[in-house]
Amino acid sequence: MSEATTSIPTGTADIGVTGLAVMGANLARNFARNGYTVALHNRSRARTDALVAEHGHEGEFVATETLEELVQSLAAPRRVLIMVKAGQPVDDVIEQLVPLLETGDIVIDAGNSHYEDTRRREAALAEKGLHFVGVGVSGGEEGALNGPAIMPGGPKESYTALGPMLEKIAADFDGEPCCAWVGTDGAGHYVKMVHNGIEYADMQVIGEAYDLLRQVAGMEPEEQAQVFTAWNQTDLASYLIEITAEVLSQVDAETGRPLVDVIVDEAGQKGTGRWTAISGLDVGSPVAAIAESVFARSLSSQPQVRARARELLAAGTEGSGTPAPSDREAFVEDVRQALFASKLVAYAQGLDMLSAAAAEYGWSLDLGTIASLWRDGCIIRADLLDVIMRAFGGRDTDRHPEPGTRAEGQPANLLFAPEFTQAIAEALPSWRRVVATAVAAGVPVPVFSSALAYYDGLRAERLPAALIQGQRDFFGAHTYRRTDRDGSFHTQWSGDRTEVQS
Amino acid sequence: MSEATTSIPTGTADIGVTGLAVMGANLARNFARNGYTVALHNRSRARTDALVAEHGHEGEFVATETLEELVQSLAAPRRVLIMVKAGQPVDDVIEQLVPLLETGDIVIDAGNSHYEDTRRREAALAEKGLHFVGVGVSGGEEGALNGPAIMPGGPKESYTALGPMLEKIAADFDGEPCCAWVGTDGAGHYVKMVHNGIEYADMQVIGEAYDLLRQVAGMEPEEQAQVFTAWNQTDLASYLIEITAEVLSQVDAETGRPLVDVIVDEAGQKGTGRWTAISGLDVGSPVAAIAESVFARSLSSQPQVRARARELLAAGTEGSGTPAPSDREAFVEDVRQALFASKLVAYAQGLDMLSAAAAEYGWSLDLGTIASLWRDGCIIRADLLDVIMRAFGGRDTDRHPEPGTRAEGQPANLLFAPEFTQAIAEALPSWRRVVATAVAAGVPVPVFSSALAYYDGLRAERLPAALIQGQRDFFGAHTYRRTDRDGSFHTQWSGDRTEVQS
Repeated sequence: MSEATTSIPTGTADIGVTGLAVMGANLARNFARNGYTVALHNRSRARTDALVAEHGHEGEFVATETLEELVQSLAAPRRVLIMVKAGQPVDDVIEQLVPLLETGDIVIDAGNSHYEDTRRREAALAEKGLHFVGVGVSGGEEGALNGPAIMPGGPKESYTALGPMLEKIAADFDGEPCCAWVGTDGAGHYVKMVHNGIEYADMQVIGEAYDLLRQVAGMEPEEQAQVFTAWNQTDLASYLIEITAEVLSQVDAETGRPLVDVIVDEAGQKGTGRWTAISGLDVGSPVAAIAESVFARSLSSQPQVRARARELLAAGTEGSGTPAPSDREAFVEDVRQALFASKLVAYAQGLDMLSAAAAEYGWSLDLGTIASLWRDGCIIRADLLDVIMRAFGGRDTDRHPEPGTRAEGQPANLLFAPEFTQAIAEALPSWRRVVATAVAAGVPVPVFSSALAYYDGLRAERLPAALIQGQRDFFGAHTYRRTDRDGSFHTQWSGDRTEVQS
Repeated sequence: MSEATTSIPTGTADIGVTGLAVMGANLARNFARNGYTVALHNRSRARTDALVAEHGHEGEFVATETLEELVQSLAAPRRVLIMVKAGQPVDDVIEQLVPLLETGDIVIDAGNSHYEDTRRREAALAEKGLHFVGVGVSGGEEGALNGPAIMPGGPKESYTALGPMLEKIAADFDGEPCCAWVGTDGAGHYVKMVHNGIEYADMQVIGEAYDLLRQVAGMEPEEQAQVFTAWNQTDLASYLIEITAEVLSQVDAETGRPLVDVIVDEAGQKGTGRWTAISGLDVGSPVAAIAESVFARSLSSQPQVRARARELLAAGTEGSGTPAPSDREAFVEDVRQALFASKLVAYAQGLDMLSAAAAEYGWSLDLGTIASLWRDGCIIRADLLDVIMRAFGGRDTDRHPEPGTRAEGQPANLLFAPEFTQAIAEALPSWRRVVATAVAAGVPVPVFSSALAYYDGLRAERLPAALIQGQRDFFGAHTYRRTDRDGSFHTQWSGDRTEVQS
């Protein structure tokens, strides 16, 4: 309402939003459209006024000039949602807000903050009796306005006052909100980060499938758009497959060529995908498929080196029989199976690192509930997520496994859920053929092949890690364990080569 | 000399060493054996006395009780080498040392510190007029005593007083010491870290070769020991290949089985390899082969999940024709070529991240000189390092390229050096065959295949990164660049799908 900009009611607004760039503005509008009174604040007042002028009719807004006014306008417990650039700006706003707040008030960071920052801020505000809730939000601008996936962390007790509002603005899947409290302090931002890591891998495996269909089967983007549209009716059905078909069918108006051929093939990578791979390394979880998708982007972003490589490096594909698949349909199906299997592995790795991080940071993460949040609203939304959720015992927001463990009955690895064990078993011959074909044809498939190596590594009877332990004992006396009894052992390599127990 | 333990001469010792566990003790003995007077200090005096009692005859030692005594015993500028556990213990020793030192004195950290800690400490001590030198030391206990590879960072001017001593105790290769100042502040520890990352990859590719020879060619460890011994006469010649033959020929006295079959196949990974992969991600360098070798270790360290996977997961190798190579010799040679090519990629990635880090941290790193340091004394020592050094213009400690650039004439990627371009071109058919064979046979080769994907990615005419940019523009309006003109562009996907320049 435009009169809200002139008189500021005190203690009545349901939530305050500071930072009204497009994500903050859209979340504010989403709250208002759902019947909440939303107090607005932005560093420069013009944005606030523009929002009220353009969208004031969508609900109840209270425009404020300062953070003091914003806080005054709120009903207790005060809920202040910060949507500013991650990093120092968040700390700056918190520093200004804290003196204005009272015990039990809730500060919400809905930006793309790193979970370690969220952990630090939560601890600092808890000391002052304030709730700090890091909230992962996925779905882009569109999602923020119409229903994103929302992954709140922070103190559980804060969810009583905050959760119902977030659930109301979240996407909904079969009547269930894509929002639930996921765990303490930084857990919300962590889960969102892993979502993005999986998103990186999901995009990369689609890219590898596209590359194979193009280079090996000679299918042009327009024809591939039809393939992806058809795949969207299979167990690959997902938002990313759907928009891939859209992108591939787009023709550049200027040149008449497929748009994908006009776009520079260098993908940015400094973001949450990188954080995910780093955290996987930190917590000792083998998230190789996610990391490979990050590395594929950084490799793409070396244009000078790539140009020189094209001049200098041999293909070496002669004689290895670059296959011109006689049966194109069979090859397309092989690629679809390889894509699905690789995608499953990326999910398995993402869920694995969630458990490892839960152990590291003391979070109780329920993987069934987390999968339920990703079923709609977010970028990786897919039919698959509902299947994953069910494989982990469905959505149960009262299920809180011990940190680092999975709830009873949940598989220790996604691939152990019977439907996925089965799906991979069926995909395997295709998957192996596709990787072998790519390798012979010189088409880079870093994630297809890494995911397959992960699968074969998991099921290996013995791994060459035993040899590595032997080498480490040789050069560094690092000792090894024996398969037949407990203890640490060392062979006196530079002596008489007898074994000693240490 | 044992009398040194009773009277402490003042201002005469050449260097002080604090922290006399095996690495510190061996470095101290190495200095003494090379004619330097070495003052000794340890938190518990017993270790100091034991060292003097056992090895006092090897040179001039001054045993001291306290850090005050240690510092008093030293000639100016004082050189104090710290060899304690990385982390807080280093800070603790520094804190005690600083008040005892004078302008121009040199504090040396020869432990496995993280380069960020070294950067922080160097800056703090520089403010007090002290030189802080982080020194990477590789070669294990044996190397520390008889000649390690030494990678000193810190202020260049400190090298005048410190460098000659370090060069004297370092390994020597054809009369050149495996020691040279590599760059400011944390550069020494960084270079050592990358050395270890390459070491991880080197060990993993040897492991993959072993696994293939075992599983595909059915070669037992004893027979393989001969293969590795033979390979050590080829361009693979290296310390790690040599000790692999030793480990594989070792028979367990207790069971009569090959030792490698008795060792638990779980390799530890929390260390410098992990740091290397994390830093590669941080600086945006595609060090996938190094990261895969870290992930292979973390996967190996999930025994419960692996046990369940063995029960549940299908092999899916039926029908894909697990090859029983009719010509075993040819297969062995294929594996050797694949190992060499993959190893070259790991080096290319390690050197690439050195350049990226140099840009990030403002270091002038000369890759020719750095390669020269790894020719002897360290774990990755190999004939190959001399070839790499020459490909980068040889050793030239006066060559200081701009941070982030390579010196004139140095290849932008290791694989562009003519001898390596050629070697890979020759290896390619073998490399492709081996990966395809492994994939069909279900033998995990994460680094062989990742390295090949890197190679094929580098030389690709077009990468699917273009599709990824299209997807990102679709769901997040991230914009893309066009191949035919400058600027950032966005297709209005939810509108009329025209393109706008942003």
